[in-house]
Amino acid sequence: MRTIGALMFPGFQLLDLYGPLELFGWLPNEFRTTTCAETPGAVPSSPGTPGFAQTSLADDAAFDILLIPGGFGTRREVDNRRLIDWIDATARRSGIVATVCTGAALLARTGHLDGRRATSNKRAFAWVASQGPAVAWQRRARWVEDGRYWTSSGVSAGMDMTLALIARLVSLDVSREVSANAEYIWNDDATVDPFAPDDP
Amino acid sequence: MRTIGALMFPGFQLLDLYGPLELFGWLPNEFRTTTCAETPGAVPSSPGTPGFAQTSLADDAAFDILLIPGGFGTRREVDNRRLIDWIDATARRSGIVATVCTGAALLARTGHLDGRRATSNKRAFAWVASQGPAVAWQRRARWVEDGRYWTSSGVSAGMDMTLALIARLVSLDVSREVSANAEYIWNDDATVDPFAPDDP
Repeated sequence: MRTIGALMFPGFQLLDLYGPLELFGWLPNEFRTTTCAETPGAVPSSPGTPGFAQTSLADDAAFDILLIPGGFGTRREVDNRRLIDWIDATARRSGIVATVCTGAALLARTGHLDGRRATSNKRAFAWVASQGPAVAWQRRARWVEDGRYWTSSGVSAGMDMTLALIARLVSLDVSREVSANAEYIWNDDATVDPFAPDDP
Repeated sequence: MRTIGALMFPGFQLLDLYGPLELFGWLPNEFRTTTCAETPGAVPSSPGTPGFAQTSLADDAAFDILLIPGGFGTRREVDNRRLIDWIDATARRSGIVATVCTGAALLARTGHLDGRRATSNKRAFAWVASQGPAVAWQRRARWVEDGRYWTSSGVSAGMDMTLALIARLVSLDVSREVSANAEYIWNDDATVDPFAPDDP
């Protein structure tokens, strides 16, 4: 059984979080998720509709997978020293660290991505890149794996990355079964990125 | 401004609900969502991770769009007379009624779909169909529109239907803009259903 810690903060993007948790959720014998935020309970999302955080940010938190969503709230949270410190410390104690969309900006602020390849939302790319000048940002990628760090492009790309993670951690057959259960048309090629800017 | 009432119940499917709400959420000047359940607050989902319901099921509820997700909880909720009666009455007072996945079983129990074309999750199809013997169930369809009733196939198909709804209610250009914002690869053809059983 692998543990997933799913971070929430005001202005998180709904699908960045619940898309991956939907897919991991089809495998209750493989993955167990906890949603966590500075203030547990209802957490407003970018679109407004609140999600729910089960626990606060424990000082000794450690997960097999730390999942960091994006959303407009990241514009504020990159300057939230307590949150960035918690991500930094929790990422050190955890196994895989996975970000969706502008969640990469939060992880970049910790320095964990320095010298590594990473990607993010294509419409907020310049801003995210500015949060980690030492990161090798990839402009054309649905998701990027570099060591234990997995970063995905915007919103829906988090689901494609999650199925790749399941393929890596469990098996490709199981991943295909999950995508069929969720009737999700998996873009299983990380290099296929329809939302990347046209090459000059 | 159109109102969306998004129904929740224990064992709702995470992505059935939050996929559509993510997409509607990109248009805060067009749509305003309220999540509602018999018991407001944290509501456990099919995968376990709780969502959050903002309000209870008001006796006089009426929405421009009533959104009904599926999930394993529907197996129990089809026999929840209070919930089915609320869906029946609220659907009468509302504009569009949209279901995702096995949410069609709940709507079928009200009789609203009788004589109409509808679809549902392909892996639970026989069970859903048994909840509405007078419904013209469509085995091969990503989603089906019949009058003010929109029903979609399993889980992720709710997002494809939502973008079609936005195209209908706002414009196709706006719908394409929303799918680009969410970096969602929209299957915009309701007849393309990769999860339908092979024809005999």
